[in-house]
Amino acid sequence: MILSPGATVGILGAGQLGRMLAMAALKIGLRCHVYAPETEAPAHDAAHARTIAPYEDRAALRRFVETCDLVTFEFENVPTECLEFLQTLKPVRPSPRALALTQDRLTEKTFLRGLGLETAPFADVADAGALMRAVREIGRPSILKTRRFGYDGKGQTMLREGSDLGAVHRALGAGPMILEGFVAFEREVSVIAARSLEGAVVAYDLCENEHERHILARTRVPAHVAPELLPRAREIAEKIIVGLDYVGVIGVEMFCARDAAGAERLIVNEIAPRVHNSGHWTIEGAETSQFEQHMRAIAGWPLGATTRRGLIEMRNLIGEEAEDWRDILAEPDMSLHLYGKLQARPGRKMGHVTRVLRP
Amino acid sequence: MILSPGATVGILGAGQLGRMLAMAALKIGLRCHVYAPETEAPAHDAAHARTIAPYEDRAALRRFVETCDLVTFEFENVPTECLEFLQTLKPVRPSPRALALTQDRLTEKTFLRGLGLETAPFADVADAGALMRAVREIGRPSILKTRRFGYDGKGQTMLREGSDLGAVHRALGAGPMILEGFVAFEREVSVIAARSLEGAVVAYDLCENEHERHILARTRVPAHVAPELLPRAREIAEKIIVGLDYVGVIGVEMFCARDAAGAERLIVNEIAPRVHNSGHWTIEGAETSQFEQHMRAIAGWPLGATTRRGLIEMRNLIGEEAEDWRDILAEPDMSLHLYGKLQARPGRKMGHVTRVLRP
Repeated sequence: MILSPGATVGILGAGQLGRMLAMAALKIGLRCHVYAPETEAPAHDAAHARTIAPYEDRAALRRFVETCDLVTFEFENVPTECLEFLQTLKPVRPSPRALALTQDRLTEKTFLRGLGLETAPFADVADAGALMRAVREIGRPSILKTRRFGYDGKGQTMLREGSDLGAVHRALGAGPMILEGFVAFEREVSVIAARSLEGAVVAYDLCENEHERHILARTRVPAHVAPELLPRAREIAEKIIVGLDYVGVIGVEMFCARDAAGAERLIVNEIAPRVHNSGHWTIEGAETSQFEQHMRAIAGWPLGATTRRGLIEMRNLIGEEAEDWRDILAEPDMSLHLYGKLQARPGRKMGHVTRVLRP
Repeated sequence: MILSPGATVGILGAGQLGRMLAMAALKIGLRCHVYAPETEAPAHDAAHARTIAPYEDRAALRRFVETCDLVTFEFENVPTECLEFLQTLKPVRPSPRALALTQDRLTEKTFLRGLGLETAPFADVADAGALMRAVREIGRPSILKTRRFGYDGKGQTMLREGSDLGAVHRALGAGPMILEGFVAFEREVSVIAARSLEGAVVAYDLCENEHERHILARTRVPAHVAPELLPRAREIAEKIIVGLDYVGVIGVEMFCARDAAGAERLIVNEIAPRVHNSGHWTIEGAETSQFEQHMRAIAGWPLGATTRRGLIEMRNLIGEEAEDWRDILAEPDMSLHLYGKLQARPGRKMGHVTRVLRP
């Protein structure tokens, strides 16, 4: 099903990703209906229509989907049941199957291995008893993570020599987990890629990411890696997006590490089944933004060029950093984005700033 | 009064200019409340809140302005009384005075002359009797225009040898008019400029405009004029924006003509007290878009850089031309904008396309 201009796209989730998706939709003549449980949230400001209801409310979902021509999501922790229900009524892109696979760190890593891609060593930790065996297999340092609902460093703990395994397991909620070997990486990088309804794949240039307290702080493009890694990173993203039979924009996070011989190699860390924070620079820095790209893909429209326009630096404004908005506006080469969040809390993404240095 | 992020800007008028203003507001964390008589209109899609009511409805205006921190307009034919009423309750930027002056072709031209700027020769046509005297003074070909409510070629007629003056006068409504001498111009150009609350002035590079049936068809930047005209055009725009004590973005339309000695000179045609169609290229083609620039100016924020990013071509999509949207999307260097208008009528601006050729 291909959309016409004027069609309505339903977006599940109302954060800044939804806000920027809705803004991109406006540019190309599409309307958005945003569905989320939160009454005050960034995407509501940019939406043509809003539904505020839990993801489990079947009646609200039904009323919502009746106004939409198709549905997408900006938030990877939307319950799969919600998307599966919506899919019985209207197309959902990307598919609930792709989302479900990436929502669970164990199925995600198993899928990546199945594609022949390198990941950190990992082991299933079904219960406390399995944790001991997993630690013997993977060693320490290693990272114990809940299988589901993790983001920005939430739902994970580093296991070191002497960590109290039982206590850590309980602190993470004693549910299904995965133990991952620690990767001594040199850099974190990501690829933002898109696949059209017809199967065409495009990718943006490799991003280099710096995190602070598990939250993305800065992205630079291009990444400072060995040149042979650039086509390799693209290849990995393409394998994943095709393997998932995915329609839309995806973010693939990778580690860049050195092997024993000193050569750089790429280890896939995780898949974000949505537009991605490390792709925000594409608004000013690429021919087509990742947000417009996602809308084009799910609408069944041709994908846009991903050509980069210069040397990129994108910085997130976290918590109180957004108070510098006036100084940032006064810098001639900085583009300020604020997400309309009225309260700055520590660790909260309030906006971002992009600088494109023209070659 | 200076706005903080999260503040609400009221916009009078709900066309594509309002839509793109509201999108720019979203980018920098401002909200928009759109007020217009039309139920279906481009800016409503991008607004946080909408009021649909006539510009004369005092009760609706009062409810609207209570939700706003300040008010601006995207439509130059808002009744001055409406703005003057709103101004008693909240700041209106640009000022109702600037709007009133430019709404009337006679006061506008008189103002321009007062600044020492060249315009077409003109004469006041208060009534049918004055028309004969005006034609004797200005000669033919000349253009008879209503003093108010003209745009896109509406409210004007060319007077040639043999035109029936009485019939033309009646056809234009027999109200107050102005007769303007015909300028044999080589090109039409425009300057988009902005002035901040503190009085700083910036201008974008000179645009060259091609009209078809009185509607802007194409804009190219930079304009192909003698190099000495570029600072002159900027100077003219600066005189006007300062002379109006203006806050916000203004469009100044000029003719480029040759004098008897063959030298090029600039003749001011008209002032648009708002963002301008010939400035749409600034979204992709300049460091700061004219829409964000307007929002920054009226918010009391620092203005942004106007640096151009390449050779620009902007094309309006008029009426059925918007049906080519899919072919345009498939062109890698074209950026498509659609205004969400559901019905294409002849002469209706449905969207635009920008191409930035990188140097």
